[in-house]
Amino acid sequence: MIIVLKPEATEAQIKHIVTKVKSIGLKPMISRGAERTIIGVIGEEDLLRVQPLEVFPGVEKVMPVLAPYKLVSREFKPADTIIEVNGVKIGGKKVAVLAGPCAIENFELLLSIARSVKKAGASVLRGGAFKPRTSPYSFQGLGEEGLKFLAEAKKRTGLPVITELMDLRDLELIERHADIIQIGARNMQNFDLLKEVGRSKKPVLLKRGMAATIKEWLLSAEYILQNGNFNVILCERGIRTFETEARYTLDINAVPLIKSLSHLPIVVDPSHSSGRWGLVPAIAKAAVAAGADGIIVEVHAKPEEALCDGPQSMLPEKFAKLMVELRKVARAVGREI
Amino acid sequence: MIIVLKPEATEAQIKHIVTKVKSIGLKPMISRGAERTIIGVIGEEDLLRVQPLEVFPGVEKVMPVLAPYKLVSREFKPADTIIEVNGVKIGGKKVAVLAGPCAIENFELLLSIARSVKKAGASVLRGGAFKPRTSPYSFQGLGEEGLKFLAEAKKRTGLPVITELMDLRDLELIERHADIIQIGARNMQNFDLLKEVGRSKKPVLLKRGMAATIKEWLLSAEYILQNGNFNVILCERGIRTFETEARYTLDINAVPLIKSLSHLPIVVDPSHSSGRWGLVPAIAKAAVAAGADGIIVEVHAKPEEALCDGPQSMLPEKFAKLMVELRKVARAVGREI
Amino acid sequence: MIIVLKPEATEAQIKHIVTKVKSIGLKPMISRGAERTIIGVIGEEDLLRVQPLEVFPGVEKVMPVLAPYKLVSREFKPADTIIEVNGVKIGGKKVAVLAGPCAIENFELLLSIARSVKKAGASVLRGGAFKPRTSPYSFQGLGEEGLKFLAEAKKRTGLPVITELMDLRDLELIERHADIIQIGARNMQNFDLLKEVGRSKKPVLLKRGMAATIKEWLLSAEYILQNGNFNVILCERGIRTFETEARYTLDINAVPLIKSLSHLPIVVDPSHSSGRWGLVPAIAKAAVAAGADGIIVEVHAKPEEALCDGPQSMLPEKFAKLMVELRKVARAVGREI
Amino acid sequence: MIIVLKPEATEAQIKHIVTKVKSIGLKPMISRGAERTIIGVIGEEDLLRVQPLEVFPGVEKVMPVLAPYKLVSREFKPADTIIEVNGVKIGGKKVAVLAGPCAIENFELLLSIARSVKKAGASVLRGGAFKPRTSPYSFQGLGEEGLKFLAEAKKRTGLPVITELMDLRDLELIERHADIIQIGARNMQNFDLLKEVGRSKKPVLLKRGMAATIKEWLLSAEYILQNGNFNVILCERGIRTFETEARYTLDINAVPLIKSLSHLPIVVDPSHSSGRWGLVPAIAKAAVAAGADGIIVEVHAKPEEALCDGPQSMLPEKFAKLMVELRKVARAVGREI
Repeated sequence: MIIVLKPEATEAQIKHIVTKVKSIGLKPMISRGAERTIIGVIGEEDLLRVQPLEVFPGVEKVMPVLAPYKLVSREFKPADTIIEVNGVKIGGKKVAVLAGPCAIENFELLLSIARSVKKAGASVLRGGAFKPRTSPYSFQGLGEEGLKFLAEAKKRTGLPVITELMDLRDLELIERHADIIQIGARNMQNFDLLKEVGRSKKPVLLKRGMAATIKEWLLSAEYILQNGNFNVILCERGIRTFETEARYTLDINAVPLIKSLSHLPIVVDPSHSSGRWGLVPAIAKAAVAAGADGIIVEVHAKPEEALCDGPQSMLPEKFAKLMVELRKVARAVGREI
Repeated sequence: MIIVLKPEATEAQIKHIVTKVKSIGLKPMISRGAERTIIGVIGEEDLLRVQPLEVFPGVEKVMPVLAPYKLVSREFKPADTIIEVNGVKIGGKKVAVLAGPCAIENFELLLSIARSVKKAGASVLRGGAFKPRTSPYSFQGLGEEGLKFLAEAKKRTGLPVITELMDLRDLELIERHADIIQIGARNMQNFDLLKEVGRSKKPVLLKRGMAATIKEWLLSAEYILQNGNFNVILCERGIRTFETEARYTLDINAVPLIKSLSHLPIVVDPSHSSGRWGLVPAIAKAAVAAGADGIIVEVHAKPEEALCDGPQSMLPEKFAKLMVELRKVARAVGREI
Repeated sequence: MIIVLKPEATEAQIKHIVTKVKSIGLKPMISRGAERTIIGVIGEEDLLRVQPLEVFPGVEKVMPVLAPYKLVSREFKPADTIIEVNGVKIGGKKVAVLAGPCAIENFELLLSIARSVKKAGASVLRGGAFKPRTSPYSFQGLGEEGLKFLAEAKKRTGLPVITELMDLRDLELIERHADIIQIGARNMQNFDLLKEVGRSKKPVLLKRGMAATIKEWLLSAEYILQNGNFNVILCERGIRTFETEARYTLDINAVPLIKSLSHLPIVVDPSHSSGRWGLVPAIAKAAVAAGADGIIVEVHAKPEEALCDGPQSMLPEKFAKLMVELRKVARAVGREI
Repeated sequence: MIIVLKPEATEAQIKHIVTKVKSIGLKPMISRGAERTIIGVIGEEDLLRVQPLEVFPGVEKVMPVLAPYKLVSREFKPADTIIEVNGVKIGGKKVAVLAGPCAIENFELLLSIARSVKKAGASVLRGGAFKPRTSPYSFQGLGEEGLKFLAEAKKRTGLPVITELMDLRDLELIERHADIIQIGARNMQNFDLLKEVGRSKKPVLLKRGMAATIKEWLLSAEYILQNGNFNVILCERGIRTFETEARYTLDINAVPLIKSLSHLPIVVDPSHSSGRWGLVPAIAKAAVAAGADGIIVEVHAKPEEALCDGPQSMLPEKFAKLMVELRKVARAVGREI
């Protein structure tokens, strides 16, 4: 932690800060320059973080030196985390493909999509039973019935399944039916929900909030690890910017950045980020080329009748074609699908 | 709803769309131009919203004509909503001032702050018992004990109190102790939480999400009204932009925009938006001049020891001085404090 | 300048950096902590800025301590700069009001608008002869003819005039006709243009770029001062964010921030920032309440026929009404109009 | 163009608008619905664009149907534009690689970098002689001397060269020495500069402004084409968002979006967008996988001594390794390098 003092800071003010820092058990180092005096505090930065040093008289600004997260950092655990779900590995050499409809609408449709994505090479089936919708007038999901359909589709195809948890009262229900629990972008800072899934035994896919910095995203993951669940998959799904030609701006930098800052696997969602299925193939290939550990894609057999996100869903045949292309890109960067 | 067709759309495709629109009971009107054909559908736009028209063959884009919210709109209810909380009116001629510490830390401090903000003219006491913190290592609030302190401070000062609800399992507890329930920016799209407070009898202060458009914010308010609770106060608290000199960019446009789009009262939070108490007076005055129905300000008697947001808290004497200035600005725009 | 080293930095790497710092004539101070070593360099930070220290082996990041601008800073010149233009002061107790049409379209209209804004109390007449238009198919301005109209309107009304310079080859022409040279948002980082107006004797109004941080904006002003022209007026005109309900998001925080960081006067443009005249009164009042030294407003007698920005132009009678309200707000914050 | 009327619009107001539309020679079509009346105007949308229809009494909003650009659009010219520069094709099957130092510092260094990037397979040499620098205290480039070094490096290596034009008075000078003229992000809306290069015979690489929408970027390109120069290469170089972990957020969506909206080639700049050489390989590979027609990369033999952008420059050996990887990715998506 570096404490930069104002040009007019007095000796008494400097002493006051130094006393405070020492009282926490830390060692301040004072450097006096022509224009500013700075106080460096090396060591347990966390002890200082809870102190509102900016309000101390004479302080101009406080600059942290260390990252605020720990358990999720590569410094804490240098080796890649590989998460295994019913035989599917996420984070290793193989690029995972999670595919399926946005929302579960009825069993036949779900099963048909599940079969076609499996045939094309997907490793996990996605499908929402509880849907976070911007408008109260939009379809809110089938709820428990949808979860049962999902479990049945899993039984018939052998694909592990992922579904979103929105209300922490539904955790047990979702744990019963799903293999991976998804936390949506809008709940990335629903800290009570994070604590609950931190106590779960199931892997968690944590989507990045649409205005979350990478630091905040990793701190949200830290909530989960700190509560005991180390099986967290990060998912970049686009951030909100001024550009409206696509729904969100996919932050492709996040892929190599997460890889360098954290040991957790990262997957990319080209469907929600673009909002248009026509962009999905290019972005999916870019994600794999950039080093993503997987992609999560919306596939729907009848987009015209989809109750949710029809415009961004690929037809099964388009998805199958994409899988062929993705395999080539994966191989070009030393991965497999 | 306007459906714009691609230049190459065929007659069969146009017919397919027209049939679909009619099957929902709506009347399509076709306009054929040199470069594009468009289909206008006037009427119950909501019936069409759930249809993924963008995926129909031949469609280039779909443009909604009506706002997606209803109950919160000024079109639905032209007169200003005035919310009364223990004798304090929010939304009328008087500008409400909600003030207090970020987090409740101990009873004596809370009471002392409550007394000083009351003396300066504040109408509601704020204080957090459950705190949404970006890092799991930050102070998370006193919980139920904090609520009891708040209730006791209310008893002693007569000020109604507002506090944040994060976990819907705490709703009953918070309803017991608080007069206004605050939904924080990070939970603005926690739809299950919105539905729950929609069923509450207590007024709700709904903070704008840091990346929420005004449209999305109003749709979140719509969730609350649609579940039966019409006492919603909107709170602009800054949006996330590229500028980092202050913590967030306060969207001052939101004040007149909300006033024109909705009948709900709007208050402004200059403390969280700026992250620095030095900016609070200028922004508070700007908010009142722009027509805000209130402000919510952090005041702390000992910011150096604050467990949360010390840097943005004003000292009681600075707050008292601000209140004197605010009264003048309020009068200049035909309001009172 | 603080140089933070990687945990694995070697002694040889540290020595290499220390040698480099010393070779520039600066004094490095090494602080060794448990998790990181940091090197503080106090003094002529500028000498280090041109060194790409981040690329030195062993360096994790480099954090500047001092602001990168000098002449524009309040540290350099504590007293407010007051700029005088033909008897009108900008930056003092009086709030300046610059008003007029977006573009100069014909002389009669310009004169009629000039007379009505003067009558309402405006102190400077604005009007564009060269217009920066997003599309090549939009009206590009009358050019030199427009400047002559502007000069004539000045002669008839006595109002000093401001107009935009886009092409540095037009500088002399504009200097001949205008009292204040405007640099538009799109040219805020047209550094050759900044250097040229830095050599001019006329005051310059420098609009903030739509994606410029306050730091970059001040650095652009620094280009002008550093070339010899100290009469710079800063103009906040809205930044680009994800919100589209208004054209730009006016950064109201910029007003108190600029006041604390710089001695230069700041004015606010509520017309371009909102893009809708209906928002102008609220934002103009907010700007004055926040401490702005002036506002620049678009007024047009016949918005239906405006060749540029009709939707954001106020009718003269609406502007006159706004002036009455603004005077009250100015008085409430100890200013005058 | 769709004109949406307010619910309270009168018949007289509707008639007034209809008359105006007809007077321009266009045909309005009125659709009356329960909640709104809309007027569709199909045809020469440009004729209406210059009309400030939003200010007409009774109008709620105006929604354009057609894109505002023409010559750059794929609708205007369906086939890909392929630009040939001294035998190098940009926009065809081969992915172009433009590489070199950020700024030209001295001849020996430039030549050494030029030779190494050529050997690794780059097709164009980049290097700045005039540098747009945020701070007036940063290195501003060697100017004409730098251009001569560049021309000499071209002569010795055979690589065509690209360099930035900032000041339109330098156009002739740059045309003499360079094969491609670069317009930087900060000048994307310097419309006078765009018009000038529109009259040049040299191809232009137009960088996207850091806050420019894709629409605005294409309109800036339209300025160049409309002035007669059809050889424009678009360059995505990252947009400004709230995320600060990298310097800018590379908008990878822009690659497939430009491909669908325009016939112009698009290249990606992974160096400026990330600001850190460590991110360059991942982003370069992502760009090629997404369908970019080229990349422009900063390479420097001695980043520790670079006068500009050292931290984002790759060492020649790292660049050579990247080229090997890029070739594989290019092949995986049916391209070549």
